[in-house]
Parts: sequence; structure tokens; C-alpha cells
Amino acid sequence: MHNGAVRLLVIGGDAAGMSAASQARRRLGPDELEIHAFERGDYASYSACGIPYWVGGLVDGPEALIARDPAEHRKNGIAVHTRSEVTGIDLAARTVTVGDRTEPFDHLVYAAGAVPVRPAWADTTADGIFGVQTLGDGAALDAWVTTARPADAVVIGGGYIGVEMAEALIRRGLRVTLVERAGQPMSTIDPDMGALVADAIRGLGIELRAGVTVEALETGGGRVRAVVTDAGTFPADVVVLGLGVRPNTALADAAGLPLGATGALATDLRQRVTGPDGVVEGVWAAGDCTEVNHLVSGQKAHIPLGTHANKQGRVAGINIGGGYATFPGVIGTGITKICDLEVARTGLSTREAEAAGFRYVTATVESTNRAGYFPGAVPMTVKILAEKDTGLLLGAQIVGRSEAAKRIDAFAVAVWNRMTVTEMTALDLGYAPPYAPVWDPVLIAARKASDALSG
Amino acid sequence: MHNGAVRLLVIGGDAAGMSAASQARRRLGPDELEIHAFERGDYASYSACGIPYWVGGLVDGPEALIARDPAEHRKNGIAVHTRSEVTGIDLAARTVTVGDRTEPFDHLVYAAGAVPVRPAWADTTADGIFGVQTLGDGAALDAWVTTARPADAVVIGGGYIGVEMAEALIRRGLRVTLVERAGQPMSTIDPDMGALVADAIRGLGIELRAGVTVEALETGGGRVRAVVTDAGTFPADVVVLGLGVRPNTALADAAGLPLGATGALATDLRQRVTGPDGVVEGVWAAGDCTEVNHLVSGQKAHIPLGTHANKQGRVAGINIGGGYATFPGVIGTGITKICDLEVARTGLSTREAEAAGFRYVTATVESTNRAGYFPGAVPMTVKILAEKDTGLLLGAQIVGRSEAAKRIDAFAVAVWNRMTVTEMTALDLGYAPPYAPVWDPVLIAARKASDALSG
Repeated sequence: MHNGAVRLLVIGGDAAGMSAASQARRRLGPDELEIHAFERGDYASYSACGIPYWVGGLVDGPEALIARDPAEHRKNGIAVHTRSEVTGIDLAARTVTVGDRTEPFDHLVYAAGAVPVRPAWADTTADGIFGVQTLGDGAALDAWVTTARPADAVVIGGGYIGVEMAEALIRRGLRVTLVERAGQPMSTIDPDMGALVADAIRGLGIELRAGVTVEALETGGGRVRAVVTDAGTFPADVVVLGLGVRPNTALADAAGLPLGATGALATDLRQRVTGPDGVVEGVWAAGDCTEVNHLVSGQKAHIPLGTHANKQGRVAGINIGGGYATFPGVIGTGITKICDLEVARTGLSTREAEAAGFRYVTATVESTNRAGYFPGAVPMTVKILAEKDTGLLLGAQIVGRSEAAKRIDAFAVAVWNRMTVTEMTALDLGYAPPYAPVWDPVLIAARKASDALSG
Repeated sequence: MHNGAVRLLVIGGDAAGMSAASQARRRLGPDELEIHAFERGDYASYSACGIPYWVGGLVDGPEALIARDPAEHRKNGIAVHTRSEVTGIDLAARTVTVGDRTEPFDHLVYAAGAVPVRPAWADTTADGIFGVQTLGDGAALDAWVTTARPADAVVIGGGYIGVEMAEALIRRGLRVTLVERAGQPMSTIDPDMGALVADAIRGLGIELRAGVTVEALETGGGRVRAVVTDAGTFPADVVVLGLGVRPNTALADAAGLPLGATGALATDLRQRVTGPDGVVEGVWAAGDCTEVNHLVSGQKAHIPLGTHANKQGRVAGINIGGGYATFPGVIGTGITKICDLEVARTGLSTREAEAAGFRYVTATVESTNRAGYFPGAVPMTVKILAEKDTGLLLGAQIVGRSEAAKRIDAFAVAVWNRMTVTEMTALDLGYAPPYAPVWDPVLIAARKASDALSG
């Protein structure tokens, strides 16, 4: 089995793990590096973010969501083993256990992802209850909607995935109730911006119940029947759990790998697992099971997103392959689409800024995506935060109807580079009437925040 | 006439001049500052960039293109005098001549804009020949198309405005020939990217003739009949001159104001006119008549664009009003739309990078605006330049069919902040399937350039 080549084992065959494998392979050929990836599920290298669009019927699934199938990886010299759960890691012996086999490694990439938060009340074997974490989850939900012909759906949790799933099920013709414990959905943005999102959710015909706590699931005949909450019982032929995820670190923890303060694996900038005693040689981690540096708050954070997983995996793979790359951290960028409403954020929200101890000013502006006179011009709301004493841009949020969400990237690059809002007023952004007013909404917001600082 | 208030005169009532007036007024009331703006044309505060869309019938004109009419300015305590050409400036006496009046000033904002380049062969009184500089030009062209019912149009010059006008005239049902002296249109982007634009122009049914030099206009019966070139004679019932503009500095020059190396007025960062002998006290300049710092090439440049004019005017007005603001310069961002083709650039093109003496690598990538599996995903080409020794991003160009052009803003903020392409690979940009592949085209380009540098 050991042919003399260095041996890389990857736990988890999704974005992070397969990016690491692919990048290591780019630098080292099969004679130098043997690569095995173990995935407990049926699929590898897929876009979990696409599941709501598949369930909603906007895209075909699951094949379309698979970036690269195992055959392609194998052609590339990467052995992908699906339905292969790693059940143990022996750091001293430098082996992992997969089924009844013991596999030695020189390098180990731990990319086991995250597992859905599943409260005690969800602990039932009744049918009709679904997470939205894996392609398998998506397939099961899709099949249930098709075959069991549910009429009433309850989506629990009003974050990105919950809102996206609520829209998907409305598209499939169900009556949908979205239950959120907080005062409003999309708590990653400020309440004033979230109110715009809540309006859009209701506009889709979704019954939005915020400030509601789930207490139990009612089941009968082996399937879910209703969701019991502190604000009444909602009938449910299908329940989708969108309560977020936690890092899947049980295996790592059992093996004695150190965990960070967030409960996720801590790494250094090159994605080497790192604990109080320093770097764990030859053991790497990437993706939803890891914690990251939040470059604005200065704190560690667990922000499971495919875009981070891909970058971290790439960095790990380059380093394993003998190259050099670092993943410095994140700034909290996120975007989503609710029907035609575009929602985006980067940096810190007011809640996050307060938690991190910042003093700040805010500026909110109403503008348009295009020159006001240009066909298709629609409103856009932009809110930004700047640190009071320094003027540094701390965060930005955008809600609009068209050509809005990706404007967050200009703010994201500005946050990344620690720009002040006053410096931002001079930014040379693209202007032409089909794309922006002569003062882009990004610049108008920067002007208003700059005025607020000096006023 | 002089009521004790400080007196601000503005020469030119378009973006730069009226922004300066408005900002000064925000800080100083009518008792403190008297403001008069003199505009030789019929309109003030309008979007010249909107003219092609008006002529093309996409937007109503000219009213829709006017940001703020003279009555609104007057309500704001700004006296706007249209059809009032300033014919002389006396710096010693601190007065300007307008018609038969002499107007004293304490502050003067020179914002006379630019004038179209008009070669000797265009020196005719024949009808049917139009520039595209002022709303008056737009009105005259619109009327000619409506009343003279021209069948054949020739647009001379394949820059932004020429291409936009060619499309506008196709929309109006004319046969259109676009004549460009260079090897291809849109010479502000690299030839390989420009070739995509040339294809789109031809796709619209425009007869594109590149590498062709105009030698004369044929006229008859008081109107234009044809355009004579070194590649044959093209029939023309209407000719549009899109040959670019030069700074309108004749009046400033005659008054002894110093001009910069580009022939435009030079200013300091606060928009004070500045020459070899230093700042000219109380005399400000902004907009298309000024030169700017190009923050990448390190050279002075004349880049007439409404977005710069607005910013410079705002900065001048804040400073006149007793505040403090600076306009550091530009980085060459520009975007345009040709039918559904989106074209964008920022920083330096390869030609400009060579002219500035940079050693560089390029990376060109093909990607999509959305996740490949998401409905509406269409191709996008991104090309970037990085300095060879430092890895600094020098410039970027994008050509795509949807949600492409404004992605240039992420590059623009990166160029502005002197990011390296390697650092850019870690940028936390917005990701969700409706908006981007998991690796945004911006990041894919950065990765490829980073690889090219280390390879």
C-alpha cells in the first residue's frame, strides 16, 4: 500500500478537502504524493449552497451541483472513497481507521465540515424532518415533496438557509411558515435593514413568525404533523431545520487534536492545526470545521461558508505540496437572494460592532442601482458603520432589488484594506448610466458617514 | 451688488461647477456667501453621459437628464445664469466679464469643461454634423433624426461615446457605419478584450471600419452627404463626431492662469489652481478642464468623466465653504454597455503599463457571472495585469454579458489600495449561487496572476 510516496489522507470530500487534494496534486505527481479522500456521504465536491435552488426547482439536481465527480478526481490521481466514514485518528501511529481498514498518513487534512444544530425536540425518527446540509439531505427532501405531497411546511430558523428554503418550498406550491426565535429573520443584518427583508418574505406569501420559540414536534403515523411553539401550533407535513451548524469536530476531539475557543479547530495561517503546544505536524484543517480570524473584530469566529472552505483548502493543499500560501481570515461578507430582493453584508453589523467594543457612527442612504433616469432603475438601501475616532469603515449592509448585492464587494475590499469612509469618498468606481448614478450608492453612503464623523 | 457677503463666481454650470456651488452653499448661507454660476448653454446640472440613451430612445430627454434645474438652484440661493458666456477673467482686478457686465469675485471656480476635438476636415457649416457634448448637441441631433429622416449615419471615433452613439442610431433605425482610426474600437482596453467588443458591435448590425482615417466630408445642398476616408467613401445623412474632447482652457489661458503639461488646468489636492509660482489664491478649477493625478502611473492625465467632475466640484465647494477635502486622483476606471455587452476597465491597460515603464504579467480567465449551474449564468472574461517584481495589481479589464461591469469596482478598490494579486486571492467577496461561482471571477483572475508571478 505504501509505495514510497508521501501519503496524504483527507477526511471529508467536499469543498475544503477536495480543494486541498487538488492543489497538493497540482504540485506533486502521483509518484511523489499518494492521495486518498474519505467521504462518509454519497457525494464529493458539491455545492451545498445550491440545495435550496435545486429543491425550489430552479436548478436540476443533484448532478448539476457536483463540481467534479469521483471519476474526474481519480483521473487526476486522487482516490475518492465515498460512503467511507473515518471513525478514528491515531496521531501517535499516524493512521486513521476507515471501516475495518487502518490507513497510514504522512499528511492528514481534517475537513469534516459541520453538522446541523439539532435541538432535543427534533430527536425523533418520524419522517418529514430534514436538514439542509448535504446533497443527501437535499435528495431526501426533494423526494418527500414529490412523493408525500405535503401541503404545509414549517421552516425553523430565519437565517440564510432557512429563508432560502422557505422560498424554495413556496415555489414548490406548499403553504410555508417560517419560524424564527429572534425578533426578525436574517439577524446577521441590522434590524432596520432586516425589516426590508421581512417585508419581502411576507411578500412571497410566506407566513413569517418571528419572536417565536419552538417547543416540540407533533408526530403521528410515523411522520411529522405539526410544530408546537410558544405562539401556537403550526401544521406541518414537512419540517426543515435551518438552525445553523456547529463544527464537526468530534473525531478530532477524540483523537486529542486541540480545539479553539469557538469549539472549532484552530489553525495557523497556513491551515496547520495549532493548539496551546504549537503546530501539530502534518495535520491540517480547512473548511466548516475550523475557526477563522475575523479581521475586523480581531476575534476568532466560526463562519461556515463554501467560499472560505475553498480558499482554506486551497491554501492547505499548496502548503502540503511544498508551496507557500496563507489564509489570513475573513471579514464577514455574505449575500443572499430572496425572490428578487438582494441582501448583502460585510464587516460588522451594529450588534457585532458593539460586542467587539467599537464606538461607531452609522449612515443609511437610499439610492438606485442605475442612473435615476435609466430604464430599470430601482431603489437600493445602503447602511454603513464607521469607527468614531478613526473613521475606519467597520461594516456595510445593502438591500436592493437589482444589481445590489455584489456592490458589497467594493465595501469588502475597502474593509479589508482598512479604508476610512472619508478616503472612500474619493474612490474611482465605475460610472455609466446603465450601471450607477453619477455618485454610486457606495460613494453616497461613504459621503454621509464622512459627514456624520465631522458633524 | 456687493452686499458684504463673500462672492463666489462659477464658470460653467455643469457637474463640476454646480457641485462646487452646492457644497459651498451647504456650509455658508446667503448672508455669508453670494453665488453666481454662468453657463453659456441652455442647460445646467445635466448628465451628458445620458445623451446617447436619449438619442437612442431609451430615456426621455432632455428633462430627465437634468439633475437639478435653475429654479431649484435659485431656491437654494445659487443664481444660475444660462446663456451667459464668460468672455474674460481679470485676475488682478478679480473680476470676470459676462456680456456687457463686469462681475467681481472673491472666489472663482473655473469649470468650463471640455470641447470636442474637431479636425480641420469638419470645418463646414453644412447641416447634419453633430458633436455629443452638451444637451444642446443632443437636442439638435435628436431633432435632425426626427425631421430630416436620415438613412445613413457615420459615427467617427470608436471610443465610449462613439460606440454608444452608433448603438443609439441603430436603435433609431439608421444604417450605421462606425469609423475608427486605430486597429479596433475601444482602444482604452487591450486588443484581445477589444476584439470581443468589436464582435458585439458587428452583432448589432453596425458596419465597423477600423484602421480607417477620415480625410474629408462631402457636402451638398447645405448638408453633409458622405464621409471620405482612405478606405473609401461612406454615404452619410448624419455624421456624429466622437473624436474625444480637449480641456476648455482658452479663457483661463488668456487670463494668464497656468496650464499643466497635459494642456488642462493643474490644481492642488484641494482643487486650487496651481502653477509654477504656486497656488493662485481664490481661484479653483474642477471637472473636464482640469488634469488629475493618475495614482497608478504616477503621471498627470486628462480624463474627462462626470464622476471625477462631481467629486472635484464637491471638494472645491467644501474648501471654499471653509471645510477641508481633497481629491487625490484617479485610477482610470471606466465602464460602458454595448447592447447587452458589459465592458469595464480600471488601472492600466498593457499599452498604458508599457508607456509608464512597468514590467508586468497578465492573466486572462473565462468564468461566469453566477454559479455555472444557476439560471442566467453567462460567460465573463477577466484580464488583469500585475507588476512583475512586486505583484501589485496594475489594472483589470472585464467583458461580459450580465452582472460583469460593476465587478470592476472590486478591482478598483484593490488597485486604489495597492494590493498584490496574491493578497487578493484571500479577499472575502460575496458568494451565493445567484451572484457568483464559489470562486468569483475576480478571485480566479487573481489566482492565475499570482501563479504567473511565482511560476
